[in-house]
Amino acid sequence: MNSFGKILTLTTFGESHGAAIGGVLDGMPAGVLIDLDALQRFVERRRSGQAVGSSARDEEDRVELLSGLYLGKTLGTPIGFLVRNTNAHSADYDEIAQCYRPNHADYTWQTKYGIRDPRGGGRASARETVARVVAGGIAIQALNQLGITIESQVSQVGPYLPPDEMERAILKAASEGDTLGGIISCAIKGVPAGLGEPIFGKLHAQLAAAMMSIPSVHGFEYGDGFEMSTKRGSEVTDLFEKRDDGTIGTVTNHSGGIQGGITNGEDITMRIAFKPVPTLMREVPTVDLEGKPTTLHSRGRHDVCVLSRALPIVEAMAALVILDNYLIKKTNVL
Amino acid sequence: MNSFGKILTLTTFGESHGAAIGGVLDGMPAGVLIDLDALQRFVERRRSGQAVGSSARDEEDRVELLSGLYLGKTLGTPIGFLVRNTNAHSADYDEIAQCYRPNHADYTWQTKYGIRDPRGGGRASARETVARVVAGGIAIQALNQLGITIESQVSQVGPYLPPDEMERAILKAASEGDTLGGIISCAIKGVPAGLGEPIFGKLHAQLAAAMMSIPSVHGFEYGDGFEMSTKRGSEVTDLFEKRDDGTIGTVTNHSGGIQGGITNGEDITMRIAFKPVPTLMREVPTVDLEGKPTTLHSRGRHDVCVLSRALPIVEAMAALVILDNYLIKKTNVL
Amino acid sequence: MNSFGKILTLTTFGESHGAAIGGVLDGMPAGVLIDLDALQRFVERRRSGQAVGSSARDEEDRVELLSGLYLGKTLGTPIGFLVRNTNAHSADYDEIAQCYRPNHADYTWQTKYGIRDPRGGGRASARETVARVVAGGIAIQALNQLGITIESQVSQVGPYLPPDEMERAILKAASEGDTLGGIISCAIKGVPAGLGEPIFGKLHAQLAAAMMSIPSVHGFEYGDGFEMSTKRGSEVTDLFEKRDDGTIGTVTNHSGGIQGGITNGEDITMRIAFKPVPTLMREVPTVDLEGKPTTLHSRGRHDVCVLSRALPIVEAMAALVILDNYLIKKTNVL
Amino acid sequence: MNSFGKILTLTTFGESHGAAIGGVLDGMPAGVLIDLDALQRFVERRRSGQAVGSSARDEEDRVELLSGLYLGKTLGTPIGFLVRNTNAHSADYDEIAQCYRPNHADYTWQTKYGIRDPRGGGRASARETVARVVAGGIAIQALNQLGITIESQVSQVGPYLPPDEMERAILKAASEGDTLGGIISCAIKGVPAGLGEPIFGKLHAQLAAAMMSIPSVHGFEYGDGFEMSTKRGSEVTDLFEKRDDGTIGTVTNHSGGIQGGITNGEDITMRIAFKPVPTLMREVPTVDLEGKPTTLHSRGRHDVCVLSRALPIVEAMAALVILDNYLIKKTNVL
Repeated sequence: MNSFGKILTLTTFGESHGAAIGGVLDGMPAGVLIDLDALQRFVERRRSGQAVGSSARDEEDRVELLSGLYLGKTLGTPIGFLVRNTNAHSADYDEIAQCYRPNHADYTWQTKYGIRDPRGGGRASARETVARVVAGGIAIQALNQLGITIESQVSQVGPYLPPDEMERAILKAASEGDTLGGIISCAIKGVPAGLGEPIFGKLHAQLAAAMMSIPSVHGFEYGDGFEMSTKRGSEVTDLFEKRDDGTIGTVTNHSGGIQGGITNGEDITMRIAFKPVPTLMREVPTVDLEGKPTTLHSRGRHDVCVLSRALPIVEAMAALVILDNYLIKKTNVL
Repeated sequence: MNSFGKILTLTTFGESHGAAIGGVLDGMPAGVLIDLDALQRFVERRRSGQAVGSSARDEEDRVELLSGLYLGKTLGTPIGFLVRNTNAHSADYDEIAQCYRPNHADYTWQTKYGIRDPRGGGRASARETVARVVAGGIAIQALNQLGITIESQVSQVGPYLPPDEMERAILKAASEGDTLGGIISCAIKGVPAGLGEPIFGKLHAQLAAAMMSIPSVHGFEYGDGFEMSTKRGSEVTDLFEKRDDGTIGTVTNHSGGIQGGITNGEDITMRIAFKPVPTLMREVPTVDLEGKPTTLHSRGRHDVCVLSRALPIVEAMAALVILDNYLIKKTNVL
Repeated sequence: MNSFGKILTLTTFGESHGAAIGGVLDGMPAGVLIDLDALQRFVERRRSGQAVGSSARDEEDRVELLSGLYLGKTLGTPIGFLVRNTNAHSADYDEIAQCYRPNHADYTWQTKYGIRDPRGGGRASARETVARVVAGGIAIQALNQLGITIESQVSQVGPYLPPDEMERAILKAASEGDTLGGIISCAIKGVPAGLGEPIFGKLHAQLAAAMMSIPSVHGFEYGDGFEMSTKRGSEVTDLFEKRDDGTIGTVTNHSGGIQGGITNGEDITMRIAFKPVPTLMREVPTVDLEGKPTTLHSRGRHDVCVLSRALPIVEAMAALVILDNYLIKKTNVL
Repeated sequence: MNSFGKILTLTTFGESHGAAIGGVLDGMPAGVLIDLDALQRFVERRRSGQAVGSSARDEEDRVELLSGLYLGKTLGTPIGFLVRNTNAHSADYDEIAQCYRPNHADYTWQTKYGIRDPRGGGRASARETVARVVAGGIAIQALNQLGITIESQVSQVGPYLPPDEMERAILKAASEGDTLGGIISCAIKGVPAGLGEPIFGKLHAQLAAAMMSIPSVHGFEYGDGFEMSTKRGSEVTDLFEKRDDGTIGTVTNHSGGIQGGITNGEDITMRIAFKPVPTLMREVPTVDLEGKPTTLHSRGRHDVCVLSRALPIVEAMAALVILDNYLIKKTNVL
């Protein structure tokens, strides 16, 4: 239940303030050259402190690959990896062990397991996503070698679309101890036609599961998405055309590169909605473990808006899905 | 890849104009009373011809349960079932074997497998969903016995929200050979706290995958969804309260009953966006199998708007997810 | 839990005296020609009444393929199939509903589920294997097209090895209301090198699981098996040689075609031990559902020795494993 | 494909001479007390140098648990762990990179992946089993708390049964640069009735897959096994009896505690056949990577007989299977 994927599978482990976050990427094809420096740089994109509104926790997030490579190439064996938790101040979190933080997983986790690691949210912390970024970063390198690229951007922060307004909104929210959500757009280019499984494994269903599994995500759409449901069929028909190179393509791309759950060779487009960060830097009323009213004043290090840090996470999850389906497609014929 | 679920798994088969649509529901707990009449009535809700804008195909959709029950109770063994395809007019579909219909899966399917059954869209037809409704209908009966209920409704057709406007829009689109999409809202009530798996198996990620796997769905959100991403954290905080019965609940439910991927005992709420039906009842330009321009004039029987027929499909998929997670939760402690 | 395989998966359903035994074979590659007559003949090999010591139940076992084929070729979609139960005399089994038969699954099943279908053993009956034979028969046709063949034979009945002694032993046991077990040998030829997954999915581990899942099997070995454990390393070394066609092979085949869990291109050899049929045609002391002593005198139709009927089951299970691993191997490189 | 289990899953990674061997044990129930010292001692049992015929490689095999525990109890989250490779002399293995060792996985691995890590056999080395022992050691502690125990012993070395003869045979083989195989017997006691899944997941099929996945294993049997196939039904019938405590049991246990794939509450008994160690300490003819004849004289550190070191591996794999099925059983009823 901490695994993801069918042929290419990622299994992750780790609590926010435990020894390490790590994982096993299994099913990576053999013989793929991996650029370790590029991988480390990709993981750095997720680190805090790089953008307005990101928290100041200065983890090093150095990736340790423990297996699966030999002389710079994948062996076809599982790639075990970890990132040590080096800079965790558990003391910051003593208070929250005694109450349930609103919009966090404290209460649901306690109900489910009867036990939880309260330090930094334990495994419910978004820190677990560093394992996704390591594995996805490896998958991206394989995809690039196949001519497939993934691009994402913050397209909205709160209700704001222009970058300068986004930045201003974050600074204002920060000054008021408040937080913001937003929307990330992602495009996957160069994907061959024929990826995705028609019924329960529609490619967009797999992408939805991947994106919705990222902490704070509350919505997913592909192609024209929710907007498409307000239109008439005649307004969103992607007509076919024969291109100069002899291939068949579509004139428009309302479908977001996927029809019937299977790629058609056009760009895959999707949008992912993030709720505002749940931890406010102000006093918040809540209840203690017995349900008695209390107040909570978070200190620690927290983001005002996670969107910019979430970009490599979105790209990583997209890469895991696409490479997995690329491998599955190989089994469609004898 | 035609299977869904972890403990409770549904595997389906069947082409639109083949002998039958069917499936195997495996992992159903033993000893559950199944009301076969109620199941048949639930399956009838998905049939055509019951609402404005639905197509006239008059299948009987009689459910045949082949195994897994004895004296009205589940045995704990797999429940095999089928629904015969009795009223298929394959001749209606001769034309479409020679071209690719826009916004359909003809082209992507051909690219993936190098072969396809063109009769009625083959397995890419929404007719496959009858198997989901049979299986989900059984799951719903088990959930009801646990006090869990699922309700869904068409909350938008095209851009229209009031029921009378929805109906009028459908009639108008029909008269013009056009089609409409819309939005279905679904609520799951009575779910105990603690269901869902924290990382890749977040309950909303599983629900998203389930809903996005329904034909024509282009978007999913839970709780306040996309709207939530435009708000500040302080505006969407679901504060805790102790209730008269001693339990802990939340005052508001922006989170849609799920926090950190795990249920908190509040109602699960979600919205699912359907694109307009791709088949227009008018001449449409397209390409033939070699990419040469041609035109297509669909006849056959097609819906103008599938939303009302999709309600039991949404409920069925929701039920499969919830019952599966109910069973998984049993394994969280020794 | 009623499914088998990773890419090529078989899910089965059905009780001995329910409406039908059936299944879904998912993941079959597209475009494979299937000879339905040959498939029906393969299924007939499993039927009763064809060999000394087999029971007289005269089922027709007519295979109904419900999906997944079009114009004689596989579509890449799931192949749903069933075999109706036409000749079941439930009355024969009234007595056994009131007690637990020794060496049968009555007691364990009741303990596990709290309910069971007593008619003919319900799902615990070896009748479920007809679904394996249908699915395996399809897989065999695909393998044959790849130049891979599977051969099996009864190599021992009780302690007897020569065919005429085996036959005599069966007749003698039958005349005394007793039963016999034995050993089946199986060879898989033409398998390319490189199939099998190195750690938990070693090819012989998958074959062991497949064979041990056949009713009555109590032992499995491959290559020199148990005998090999009595030898010194120097006695069972399969030395390499370069063959005239330039390929590398081994001079001997103590390893049974598998080294480190992966095929080396030599014949895969294995032996499967079946316990004697548990149902004796004589009075047997046992207990009723409360544990009180009683006696049981089975009538119904029962085999004295199932070995000859089990041959197509062994071949079918072997075929499912080999074809699955053939498909998995395609994903080992990018 | 480097994962094992359904609810309780173990995923492992690591090459013999890479940075570490490790894994992730997922699905462990929450709240189980783990004794880390006892776990370390269990892992030590697998180390070399403790018994006659074991190799002298002096790894420390110190277990590092990286996640999933808090204040000595399991959290219900995945338990990531690793064992560093501290004492590897890669230089010893230079020669074997240039040829294929007979009865090893060098050739099959190269054929499968087109690349391999030749240092110490890479991932094909039995060193990978340390990860199984760590995970299984944790499972054993949970089982013990449920009153379930696992015992194993070397019951045969080569053709020899008495302990003193086994020891003498090993010393003699060692002095001649030869190696030996043998048989391990294992009993699982205190298992409740009702564990195991009836069709493809029969408990003995799962145990067979588990044991056959251990390096060097060539055969598996449970209960009376191969011997049972030589008997008449009347000779191996396990008659039922009501015991003084009111429960139902069997007078004999030819069935090895499993009937119809499901436990009946009696001891589970099984025997596992190991082939002789493939690496001989003498000159052996073989071929190089192009198939040209060459000779190989292994040095390095190698066991003459692995049986005593394999005992904790057998127990670990048995524990993983039993605990997994204990959890699955919880889902058999609503």
